[in-house]
Formats: sequence, C-alpha cells, structure tokens
Amino acid sequence: MDTPALPSRAGTLLRDALTRPVCIVGLGLIGGSLMRAASDAGREVWGATASSTTSEEARADGFDVAATLPEALRRAATADALVVLAVPLPSLEDVLAEVARSAPACRLTDVTSVKEPVADAVLRRTPATRFVGGHPMTGTEFSGWDAGSLQLFHDKVWVVATDDDTDLGVWTDVVALALACGAAVVPAASEEHDVAVARISHLPHLLAAVLAGVGADGGDLALALAAGSFTDGTRVAGTRPELTAAMCEGNRSALLTALDDALGRLGAARGSLASTGGLFATLTIGHTGRQSLDDARLDRREVRIDLAGKPSELLDAMRELGRSGARVIGWTAEALEAADPQEVD
Amino acid sequence: MDTPALPSRAGTLLRDALTRPVCIVGLGLIGGSLMRAASDAGREVWGATASSTTSEEARADGFDVAATLPEALRRAATADALVVLAVPLPSLEDVLAEVARSAPACRLTDVTSVKEPVADAVLRRTPATRFVGGHPMTGTEFSGWDAGSLQLFHDKVWVVATDDDTDLGVWTDVVALALACGAAVVPAASEEHDVAVARISHLPHLLAAVLAGVGADGGDLALALAAGSFTDGTRVAGTRPELTAAMCEGNRSALLTALDDALGRLGAARGSLASTGGLFATLTIGHTGRQSLDDARLDRREVRIDLAGKPSELLDAMRELGRSGARVIGWTAEALEAADPQEVD
Repeated sequence: MDTPALPSRAGTLLRDALTRPVCIVGLGLIGGSLMRAASDAGREVWGATASSTTSEEARADGFDVAATLPEALRRAATADALVVLAVPLPSLEDVLAEVARSAPACRLTDVTSVKEPVADAVLRRTPATRFVGGHPMTGTEFSGWDAGSLQLFHDKVWVVATDDDTDLGVWTDVVALALACGAAVVPAASEEHDVAVARISHLPHLLAAVLAGVGADGGDLALALAAGSFTDGTRVAGTRPELTAAMCEGNRSALLTALDDALGRLGAARGSLASTGGLFATLTIGHTGRQSLDDARLDRREVRIDLAGKPSELLDAMRELGRSGARVIGWTAEALEAADPQEVD
Repeated sequence: MDTPALPSRAGTLLRDALTRPVCIVGLGLIGGSLMRAASDAGREVWGATASSTTSEEARADGFDVAATLPEALRRAATADALVVLAVPLPSLEDVLAEVARSAPACRLTDVTSVKEPVADAVLRRTPATRFVGGHPMTGTEFSGWDAGSLQLFHDKVWVVATDDDTDLGVWTDVVALALACGAAVVPAASEEHDVAVARISHLPHLLAAVLAGVGADGGDLALALAAGSFTDGTRVAGTRPELTAAMCEGNRSALLTALDDALGRLGAARGSLASTGGLFATLTIGHTGRQSLDDARLDRREVRIDLAGKPSELLDAMRELGRSGARVIGWTAEALEAADPQEVD
C-alpha cells in the first residue's frame, strides 16, 4: 500500500463528477439537447437563454430556465455546478464577462468548435474560473431549441481539452457529463483539436458552400440533375451562414492552413486536367483517404479509464490515447467502485 | 382532320418503344441494374460482358448473357432492339467499333456521364447507327454486377439527349425504357447536359477527393473527430478512382470551367478570411444555393407527354421543359390509347 491516498482522491473526483449539477448557458441546438440529455441521465440541470421564446419553449417542455443569466450563474456558484457555455462564439465574450461577475471561480466548460481561442478568452475575461474546454462533434443543419434532441450526443465524439495545465477535477466533470449523454470522449490538446477540426469540419463546411454556389449558378437544369454527390456534398451549406461563419472564423489560423492545402491540391488537379495528365492521382489519394476513415471506424479502439496515477501522467496518457484515434467510452469497474464503494460492496 | 397521319405515327412510335427488346453491353452497376429493371418491366433483355465472372453471376441470377459481344449485337440487329452501351468511357471506342461491325444500323443509346463526347465518338466510329444518348443520374460508391439493384433507377433522373437532329423514334425508345425502369426523364441538349453535370456531379467528386486527402493527412486524431460534414462531403471519394477519373476526364472542358469557378470562389474566401473580412459572403451564397436545391425539389413540375406534333417542335418543347427544371414522369392517356387502341376501347 504505497499510495493509499490515490484511490480515495480518484474515487472522490469521480463520485462528485457523476452527480454534479449542470448549468447550461444558451439553449439552442447543442445547449437544448444537452439540457434534455443531462436531465435524462438524472442530473440536476438548469439553464439560461437570452431568448424569451426559447425560455418559454424549454419551460413548456418541463425544464428549469432561470429568469436571468446572473441568477443561473449565482446558483451554479452556490451549488458548485459545472457551467456549460453553449452560446455561439460571437456571444462568448459577453457571457464570460457575466461569469466573471456572478460565478468567478466556477467549474467551466464550453461546447464550441474551437478550443485555443476560447481558452484564451476565458483566461482574459474570467481567469479565476476552472475551465476545461469541450467540443461535442455533433449537430444537424437545423438550429434552436426545437431542433434539439435527447439523442444528439449518442455515439458521437465529445472532445475534452487535455492540456498540460488542465484541472483534473473539472476534466473529470466534463468527461463524466459527456459519457452520461451517451457520447464517447476523445481527449486532445487544444491546439491539436483546432488543427484537426479545421480539416474535417471547417473546411468541409466551406467546400460545401462553394459547391452549392457553383451548382446553383448552373440554373434549373443543373439543380434538376443534382443527385447524391451534390446533395451530400452541399448538405451542411444548409446550416445558417452566421453560425458557420462564426465557427470557421473562430478557427481562422488553422482553417487557412487547411484551405491552402485544399487549394494546392485543386490547383494541381486543375493543371493536370488541363494538360496531358488527368485526375487519377488526386482521386486515388482521395480514395485512400476515404478508406482510412472507413478503416478507422471499423478498427476503433474504445477504452474504459480510471483516474488513478499522477495527474500529469494521466493527462499525458489520455492525450496520447486521443492522438492514436482511440476514444473513452466509460469508467473501469475499479474506478466506479472507488467512487461509490458501498454500492459495490 | 388536317393531320390524320400524326396520331398514328405517334401511336406506332410509342407502341413499339413500349415493347422494344433491350440489348445491354456491360453488366456493371448500371448495366446490371438496367438488366434487372428492364426484365422486371416485362422487356425481352439480353446482355454482353467482357468479364466471365460477371457473366456467370448474371446467368446464375437467371439472366440472358450472350457468349460474345458480336453475338449479342447481331441478335440486336435482327430483333431491332435498343442497344444500351453501359461500359465505362475508356472502353467505349472499342465497343463502338464492334457495333459498327455487328449492328451498324442499330438503335443505340448509352448511360455514360457525358453526352457530347460520346455523340462525337459514335459519329466517328459507327455513323449509321441511330444514336440518342442517355444518362441515368444514379449510382452508389460500389460497382459491379453484385452492386446492382432493380431499384437503382427508381425516382431518379434519367437525362435523354434532345438535340435538333435527334431521331424521334429512338428518343421515344430511350424515354420509354427510362420510364419503365421507374426513372423520371429530363430532356436536355447534349452540351447543356455536360455543362450542368460538371457542376453538380463531376466537381462534387473532385472536391470530395481533395477533402478526403486533406482530412486523412490530419492523422488518426482528425479521422477520429470526423463527423457528418466530413463523412457526407467525402462519401463519393469511395468510388473506384479509375471510374471517377474516366467520368471527370470525359467531361474535361466543362469540368475545367466549373473547377475554375470553384477555385475563384475559394480564393476569394481565402483572401477575405486572411484579411479583415470573413466567410459570411461565401457562406450566404452557398446557403442560398442549397436552398434553391431544396426549393426545386419541393416545387418540381412533373409532366406526362404525348408524341403528337411536328418532331422538331416536339423536341424543342421537350428541351425547354428540361431547361426549366421539369421532368417527364409518363405518357398521357391519349398517347397510350393511340399506342394501343384495342386495350383502351
């Protein structure tokens, strides 16, 4: 028994994380779905929204919506709840200013699509909060409370920021909330997350918009002939452009790199098509890339974790896990036993 | 009774078209599906394939596959069948050379994804055939006889080339075959077809390949984070690259124009993102374009046609119909009555 204190620390962290109340700021597609899912998982959940319509809709569906954002945040401070920022990026600074006033030391996470810029804003606006960023990789082309669903996170990936200075307690809170909503957790360094999503989310949105524009300029005949390739390739162009713009512009630097990569490949393909060459090289690389996606999905490693060990080593191991394409789908039996020994014994 | 001969001509055309035997050259995804669908519609159908494996599979499924291509074509010449070229573009020239030898005056159509280059090749290789190009806008990312299905054309668009010099008899044959397979027909001039599909089919395939390449270069973490936008945006990159290359390279000129359009928009978006601007303009145009697609589908005009009138005026009217986004879903009751008066009376 070299480390008698560790199971106890890990057990306490997990026990608290599994039952921690949740305060959700913003009740659109993601926030509204989270409210439903966390409530369904047995959590105490309340929220705040700037929209009186949304507030009425959520209350009509039986949910607890505070009269004002400060009220919701003060309750979070008192209850030591996990505050989830589920507002679009452009609203984030204002909300953070209110967090600094009403719950300046709270446990804080977010669900937005970039991690480094949000972490920077938190540090600037409300440095005493215990912030660990999150990003559920889910959505639809619709938005608002009505578009939300209990199932939105089910079997989806929820990235949890896992940096060297990450607070293990709040990290555990966010992981536990994601798992409770039915998601699988991918731990990732904030910067690595931003680089990856530029390639597999923000660039696809931009390409979809460009494709939709080129196609529609082909007129009624072109639209009448549009089949699967155009329909699938433009689906996310149906998202409200201000939401997509906020998401993409929030990850400007990484998106520029990904976009330049795409422009380079397209330019090379254009040159080859116009001269004696063809598209086979570009298409073969694309085919291999798509096969990598299918292979990764067939061959996905899913692990259950505990919280034993030194925090810095644990976070290192978790980040490496995510980097390898693996995902966390739950807690080990030992971790759950440590969290609630009387239930197991 | 100024034109007593017309109903009779139209009636004869349609009667023959509704029962014309079908000879399919190439039994991959499209040809194999057509064999099943035409047979299910009660047509006499036989085919030819260069693959002994495919031949065995199709025969095992109960279909009539000739021993050789010349044998299938000679039978088509004797039966006045409609010959359907369902081979990939790179094989077309060789097959046309055999058509010139074994069925030099046959009724001929194709199912490939470009119309002008194929019409040029037919004119060069086998000028005495009565050729009217076709293009069923359907497919999957799979290929081969096994991938085929009776339902592949159901509710899909089948473009039928409608040019000034189009042979109305063979045009009627191709339209009747498409309708018998459950497709809706969009009449279009060959050149207008090629310009349109460059935008809504060939460009999407190229963008999907580029996106899949950029995404996969993001490594295991990026692939683990890939959600709907990347999955949908790269789906058609799963198609065998040699098939996509043949399709895109066959429409080189129109695809270059569409690709330059896309490159111009992406370059402008890149410049705006890198400077003080953003992506809102590009994304808004894309959103509007995608809405146009959805609107066109909700608001689609579907018509039934007869074959009365002067052939040149009829072809003109049909082409205008397609240009407006409308589609042909069947024959008028009068047309069917003229085709088979004893059944109706």
